[in-house]
Amino acid sequence: MLTEYFKTRNSVRTFSNKDVPVSLIKDILEIAIHAPNTGNMQWYSVIISKDPLIKRQLEKCHFNQPASINANVLVTFCIDINRFEKWCKVSHATPGFNNFQSFIAAAIDTSILAQQFTTLAELHQLGTCILGTTTYNAPEIGKILSLPSMVVPLTTIALGYRQTPQTPTDRLPVDAIIHNDKYHDYSDSEVTEFYKEKENLEENKQFVYENNKESLAQVFTDVRYPKNNNEVFSEKYIDYIEKQGFPIKKK
Amino acid sequence: MLTEYFKTRNSVRTFSNKDVPVSLIKDILEIAIHAPNTGNMQWYSVIISKDPLIKRQLEKCHFNQPASINANVLVTFCIDINRFEKWCKVSHATPGFNNFQSFIAAAIDTSILAQQFTTLAELHQLGTCILGTTTYNAPEIGKILSLPSMVVPLTTIALGYRQTPQTPTDRLPVDAIIHNDKYHDYSDSEVTEFYKEKENLEENKQFVYENNKESLAQVFTDVRYPKNNNEVFSEKYIDYIEKQGFPIKKK
Repeated sequence: MLTEYFKTRNSVRTFSNKDVPVSLIKDILEIAIHAPNTGNMQWYSVIISKDPLIKRQLEKCHFNQPASINANVLVTFCIDINRFEKWCKVSHATPGFNNFQSFIAAAIDTSILAQQFTTLAELHQLGTCILGTTTYNAPEIGKILSLPSMVVPLTTIALGYRQTPQTPTDRLPVDAIIHNDKYHDYSDSEVTEFYKEKENLEENKQFVYENNKESLAQVFTDVRYPKNNNEVFSEKYIDYIEKQGFPIKKK
Repeated sequence: MLTEYFKTRNSVRTFSNKDVPVSLIKDILEIAIHAPNTGNMQWYSVIISKDPLIKRQLEKCHFNQPASINANVLVTFCIDINRFEKWCKVSHATPGFNNFQSFIAAAIDTSILAQQFTTLAELHQLGTCILGTTTYNAPEIGKILSLPSMVVPLTTIALGYRQTPQTPTDRLPVDAIIHNDKYHDYSDSEVTEFYKEKENLEENKQFVYENNKESLAQVFTDVRYPKNNNEVFSEKYIDYIEKQGFPIKKK
């Protein structure tokens, strides 16, 4: 039965009007923080935004995605080494975490926490949608949420009670992502085979047709994640990460 | 009962000799891939290393940590945009994913998958330990695992059947990581209060004493995660990420 939940879970973008109390989110987080993290340093913070004015400002940073607008609450998961550094300072310890290794360790731990939160929220009949736009407009989000130095927004969960039953989303055959002992690179025919089922799904065919493209892959490269966008938002995020105290480009 | 699992889970570094079959790992992954991911592009690969010679080489990359040596299997979770790019190429689509936004989206998704795998493995009575050393020696790991361009190791799970019952690990009070609506920065006295319980744990006092330090924070800054190490491994990881096809420092 539990396996059934994990197999059929899916992200949702519409929610019921039922209120999600902050106390419930807190209870879930209290359990979720037992997920693994680097050196038990807990380099993350979670910002629960329910205030309508703040939520509205955040929605704009998420390009007014329906999931963000429909959500009852937006929960922003941030890399946070600020709290740990403050603890170091009151403990007469000199922190050395303003670097990429610390950033990436915190990014892994923050993602792990977000996923553990997702699982627990869904087991409480809540619906979730992870908003990838958090890394696109991090400077604006950081300003709205008053983030200090050493804190960087990484991902956001749009949260609310779900209206619809779980309907599993398609995935590649698991053999497409597994390698035994070493990486075995893909031949053209293997790749074609692995993506065949996805390409043949009616909704994906429709997606190609609506976007006037020749292939599903072209929808991803030309419409959803075009190179130029990726590059603009890469520079923007790197500049912000550096501004927040993690030098990447400069030594 | 399930809540009990989530509340008391802990990473383990010793395992029984009982074999973990690859088929079980595959079954778990087949369920875990239903965790959320960016645009359903599944930008990750999982390498299951059981071969004793390969495992031994990987253990060295993890500084011969007991968890890596004691594990029955090492499971390396990699950012993988290679497979997706190959699909683009056979589909006459021009990928534009050689940038930091794509890297960080894939890093979030790979971490989410690793956590979903951890939960499911633990619910199957397996023990896990996440090895943060993966980002320290990524070039050596990449060579052992024959990783092509656009593939970067992010985290590793040391896996085996657990020998000991779950014993919950200490965490900060949940109020230490939660902010309502906006970030509320920490005063010295708040930080002191939040870390008090951790500092007073017998094992942590012992830790300070054994390392001949004045405070627990100093164990983290001077012994476990010293600035110089963090900086050396930061440069090394950034250089490798760039070599694998994701420019970060140069435009």
